[in-house]
Amino acid sequence: MTNASLIRRVRFAAAHRYFRPEWSEARNVETFGACARPSFHGHTYTCEVKVTGPIDTETGMVIDLGVLDRILAAEVTARFDHRNINLDVPEFADGKMVPTGENLARFIFERVQSALAGRASVTEVRVAEDDTLAASYPASNPAS
Amino acid sequence: MTNASLIRRVRFAAAHRYFRPEWSEARNVETFGACARPSFHGHTYTCEVKVTGPIDTETGMVIDLGVLDRILAAEVTARFDHRNINLDVPEFADGKMVPTGENLARFIFERVQSALAGRASVTEVRVAEDDTLAASYPASNPAS
Amino acid sequence: MTNASLIRRVRFAAAHRYFRPEWSEARNVETFGACARPSFHGHTYTCEVKVTGPIDTETGMVIDLGVLDRILAAEVTARFDHRNINLDVPEFADGKMVPTGENLARFIFERVQSALAGRASVTEVRVAEDDTLAASYPASNPAS
Amino acid sequence: MTNASLIRRVRFAAAHRYFRPEWSEARNVETFGACARPSFHGHTYTCEVKVTGPIDTETGMVIDLGVLDRILAAEVTARFDHRNINLDVPEFADGKMVPTGENLARFIFERVQSALAGRASVTEVRVAEDDTLAASYPASNPAS
Amino acid sequence: MTNASLIRRVRFAAAHRYFRPEWSEARNVETFGACARPSFHGHTYTCEVKVTGPIDTETGMVIDLGVLDRILAAEVTARFDHRNINLDVPEFADGKMVPTGENLARFIFERVQSALAGRASVTEVRVAEDDTLAASYPASNPAS
Amino acid sequence: MTNASLIRRVRFAAAHRYFRPEWSEARNVETFGACARPSFHGHTYTCEVKVTGPIDTETGMVIDLGVLDRILAAEVTARFDHRNINLDVPEFADGKMVPTGENLARFIFERVQSALAGRASVTEVRVAEDDTLAASYPASNPAS
Repeated sequence: MTNASLIRRVRFAAAHRYFRPEWSEARNVETFGACARPSFHGHTYTCEVKVTGPIDTETGMVIDLGVLDRILAAEVTARFDHRNINLDVPEFADGKMVPTGENLARFIFERVQSALAGRASVTEVRVAEDDTLAASYPASNPAS
Repeated sequence: MTNASLIRRVRFAAAHRYFRPEWSEARNVETFGACARPSFHGHTYTCEVKVTGPIDTETGMVIDLGVLDRILAAEVTARFDHRNINLDVPEFADGKMVPTGENLARFIFERVQSALAGRASVTEVRVAEDDTLAASYPASNPAS
Repeated sequence: MTNASLIRRVRFAAAHRYFRPEWSEARNVETFGACARPSFHGHTYTCEVKVTGPIDTETGMVIDLGVLDRILAAEVTARFDHRNINLDVPEFADGKMVPTGENLARFIFERVQSALAGRASVTEVRVAEDDTLAASYPASNPAS
Repeated sequence: MTNASLIRRVRFAAAHRYFRPEWSEARNVETFGACARPSFHGHTYTCEVKVTGPIDTETGMVIDLGVLDRILAAEVTARFDHRNINLDVPEFADGKMVPTGENLARFIFERVQSALAGRASVTEVRVAEDDTLAASYPASNPAS
Repeated sequence: MTNASLIRRVRFAAAHRYFRPEWSEARNVETFGACARPSFHGHTYTCEVKVTGPIDTETGMVIDLGVLDRILAAEVTARFDHRNINLDVPEFADGKMVPTGENLARFIFERVQSALAGRASVTEVRVAEDDTLAASYPASNPAS
Repeated sequence: MTNASLIRRVRFAAAHRYFRPEWSEARNVETFGACARPSFHGHTYTCEVKVTGPIDTETGMVIDLGVLDRILAAEVTARFDHRNINLDVPEFADGKMVPTGENLARFIFERVQSALAGRASVTEVRVAEDDTLAASYPASNPAS
């Protein structure tokens, strides 16, 4: 039976900066530009999580939306909304992952995938900081 | 020659509810929550149909947009717009398919694919009931 | 001191139809078109409420957003979301107000204004059923 | 001759928090909720500036858009984009104005009005932190 | 009785340029920049027309939407959609009005107002060429 | 290591028409409808470029956004914005490619892929002329 997907969007308002402590200030600025400013800036992020699986013949659903929403509330909203990603989320602390869209998408993918515990599969997470820039994870290898 | 896709969006305003007549009222409410309410609710749906094929070297098109629009008018708008999906569309009558986004996406995929009669291939249908929830069909098996 | 406004948007998914029971079926159809169909259709409504007053010099706010959100939850979301406006909201029952955007905007204006109990003034309610059609209330007399 | 308006939208990504230093921590949290968290959060703000005046009969314009864009770049984007409003904008430092949408709209109104130096009049500034919450300045007194 | 408004949005795809034939090429470029290029450019315009009046106590409407849509089809879509405003609309021919948003909004205001023939009053027309730039007509005199 | 993608959106305002000079006027109109009108029309295009590769473990990025933005400025904005695609872009001159969304997406794909010079891979370009019609390139062969 062919699979279908459900795509759920949540939003979070967070501060962040891009900074590698083992680099010089000059190298941080050269690499990250205005994103390296020490007093942080912020975004209204949108995060779309795509969950894929067979359509249940009785409910017509790929996943119980209530279950998915509780997972997103715990793994995304509670962790990131009205937070400073660098200061409040240990995996993005200075010297750990830089809080780019790519890293956020991969991190959320792994957390939601794990929380789903096999009930369905996350097949894409897309994180956008405004309507001109988004990152998605995972991606196939490009056709060569 | 590499294929391209055309993505066309149409909109329909429809009422629906989620309900399985062979279940108890309690089980319906437990499973479907507010969507199970008997007097129906509704959505302004958007439906995106992606059609894929080679680009015609003369016209620069994957499909004649006029042909696609007539098919979408017949298969999507005429069937669903200003309708009650449960009461007016036989395939979603009580005891048949529950009118979830997943089932709507699959149903529209099959109808448009059939109506295209080989002129091009539908490769994705996405049905959204608002900007936070969408379903798409078909989906590949997730990478294991 | 010059006033400012806060504009808050909430969303509700509702079914409705346009119908006057004292009119013939023919007159209903002639006047309301597809909106008169007996089995209802629906929309994902957005409702924007504009509240106006002086900016509090300490908080920087026109109104406590928590207070406004509780009022909108009670007066708008609980009343209309996942409901049938004709069947579930007595003021819009058959023979009462037809559930047009204009009537919804006026009704919500009056309910929210009353619930605010003088803490601030509602100066506009805008109700949209999709991105091509909205109604707002109140409006000044056009310049003659 | 009747006036017309031009509405220009710019965007800025900024961090902020709501905090009054002369208040206790408890009062800050009670008043501002999650917005009071000490490590800041952030938004992708949109700022719409409406400029009003007669339509120039030769150019067909209310204002030279290049002039307006240079003013908005200096007064809005350079000041707020990729900044921390509390730490980087003196007028919103702790103990000064709380960086609410209402105060931002009024502040930007005054700065742009002043920079226009009579070439046209700002008649509204609208600042939104996401698509559910905006503030505008100025507002008339509500009809009583 | 307090008035309400209905706001209807239509869209048109049009080419245009800004050019005054009685000016030198240099002055055209200095004044209009890239908009003066001789081979035209284009926009997907959105046009919102606000119509104001009392709410009919029977229909719940400010105006019959079918009537308004026929007027907008004739006055806006048929005139501007898939057209070159400078070449195809006589009032915007070279030496006449420059096809700015301000002039388009005023022109559409006058045409729709006239076509309504007193059935309701147009109180605002807003013409946007993208989501960062719009013009509206008419505007009150700014408060002094 | 699993890849991620970055999706960047740029916008351009362009005029165009659909026309094959070796065809009769009648055949052009029959095939292209209103798009064949000789005086051109236009759109506010949005162009999304998806770039895919491994996430750099230091920067957290798939590609340096500054590099990508300079490529998009040169290959997309400078070439198409405030231009007439038929008259100003040689590859879309009369008798060459018809400037459909499909051809634009493929053309931009090839130019950006070439300009990236192996720093990352373009995996999709999506060109939309409004919110109801988009084209994307490349596409896999549909599952048979």
